[in-house]
Amino acid sequence: MKIAKTITELKTCLAEIGKDKTIGFVPTMGYLHDGHLSLINEARSQNDVTVVSIFVNPTQFAPGEDLDAYPRDFDRDSRLAEAAGTDLLFFPDPIEIYPAGASTFVAVEGAITRKLCGQSRPTHFKGVTTVVNILFNLILPTRAYLGQKDAQQVAVIKKMVRDLHLPVQIIVCPIVRDVDGLALSSRNVFLNLEERRQALILSQSLTAAKALYRAGEGRVESLKDQIVSHISTMPLAIIDYVDILDFETLADIETITAPALAAVAVRFGNTRLIDNIILD
Amino acid sequence: MKIAKTITELKTCLAEIGKDKTIGFVPTMGYLHDGHLSLINEARSQNDVTVVSIFVNPTQFAPGEDLDAYPRDFDRDSRLAEAAGTDLLFFPDPIEIYPAGASTFVAVEGAITRKLCGQSRPTHFKGVTTVVNILFNLILPTRAYLGQKDAQQVAVIKKMVRDLHLPVQIIVCPIVRDVDGLALSSRNVFLNLEERRQALILSQSLTAAKALYRAGEGRVESLKDQIVSHISTMPLAIIDYVDILDFETLADIETITAPALAAVAVRFGNTRLIDNIILD
Repeated sequence: MKIAKTITELKTCLAEIGKDKTIGFVPTMGYLHDGHLSLINEARSQNDVTVVSIFVNPTQFAPGEDLDAYPRDFDRDSRLAEAAGTDLLFFPDPIEIYPAGASTFVAVEGAITRKLCGQSRPTHFKGVTTVVNILFNLILPTRAYLGQKDAQQVAVIKKMVRDLHLPVQIIVCPIVRDVDGLALSSRNVFLNLEERRQALILSQSLTAAKALYRAGEGRVESLKDQIVSHISTMPLAIIDYVDILDFETLADIETITAPALAAVAVRFGNTRLIDNIILD
Repeated sequence: MKIAKTITELKTCLAEIGKDKTIGFVPTMGYLHDGHLSLINEARSQNDVTVVSIFVNPTQFAPGEDLDAYPRDFDRDSRLAEAAGTDLLFFPDPIEIYPAGASTFVAVEGAITRKLCGQSRPTHFKGVTTVVNILFNLILPTRAYLGQKDAQQVAVIKKMVRDLHLPVQIIVCPIVRDVDGLALSSRNVFLNLEERRQALILSQSLTAAKALYRAGEGRVESLKDQIVSHISTMPLAIIDYVDILDFETLADIETITAPALAAVAVRFGNTRLIDNIILD
């Protein structure tokens, strides 16, 4: 596995790969877990070359969020990425991605970035789309692999790719869960034992909602109420949002007539977790 | 010369060209004049293939601006582009570039888009950077050719390319002028004879300012005053702005110690003209 820490090194590696190879790209913020590794596996199976980036992107964190605290372990990540079959690992400093005076942003406007995480993190997706756009411009991947865990990020990036006609195909891979159902997240490391135990309510409440939906309940308010009640049984859970929206556009819906996304964000102590399930 | 009116047709043509050829790209809003043709010539001389786009971009016009009135003549443009040696002409409908519901924008923030034309056209450059980004994504040119006539557009697009690491080289070509000095512009067609005569004051005032600068006057306020006085001798001239700024960043300066841009925008009747000169 090659490691590029600068754009110059990245370009040298990409030039060696050449323009005729298909490139599968997995953008990450590092602290890799099995969810990331499932993306790398999928990229390997569909492309000649697999490129992984590790970049904790400062522009998607607002002041006061956990940019500095975000977990980092490059040596471990590097070993995991190599073992998973990564060909090229891009691990740039922020100054490489955002040179001094950089002030260009890519933003998806409208409800799709204002709902869900966009409510409590109003500048978050502007940072996400900007950095993903930059990484796509640098790497020019054939396909990029994203996890359904970050459902809104997936919807927003798909829309950016469509609206800006970016020459890349977005492949979305299913959420990877621990054996007890907790969705894998780099932030899970911050949970103490009791928080982690109570956090299982996220996947449990979503699975229960899906069962209700399958049993014939299509009214969004009723399903949301069930999820809120379910999560509220856990004393440490502080709900940020519970919502059910159109799967593609994230538009509000009253009853489910097309694929919908049930998504939750809940804080346990200082740790904010998200999870979701597709109702189709 | 091939003509593509849809993205599907464009992609077919680009696939036939292949990935190994260098592509020179000239984005235009049509109604081609010798300024555009100089860009096409430069593109031809430096690349295997020359692609020209004609697209009057709606997102860079504000309500009340001259989007509908902007001059259009595709048959004439097509003949001129072919005679100049264009290999592929891209002439899309707005719905091809901006599909229904498109809401993603690329914006260069900061003084560089707030100064000069950004004052009276605050949303203009957001439309310019968005459409240029889209065209770059669709065509993936090796080099793109812009005219120095639109000096602020050049500075803004160069900054977008740098900040977003777009894989294209920007080549800037000098202003092409009529024999009497008027900078060529598609909008010149709107001038009546008297307006056109008085509009010569733009290039004359800028040339005089450059002579003053060459003679030792480096104070920006003094040079600006001279240009304003000069233009004001024409009764039909309504000044939008006269400014002298740092050439690259468009930052304010008090005295000229590095290359500077002297730029003017003046209305004659319903027609707004811009012109500029480099002080170096």
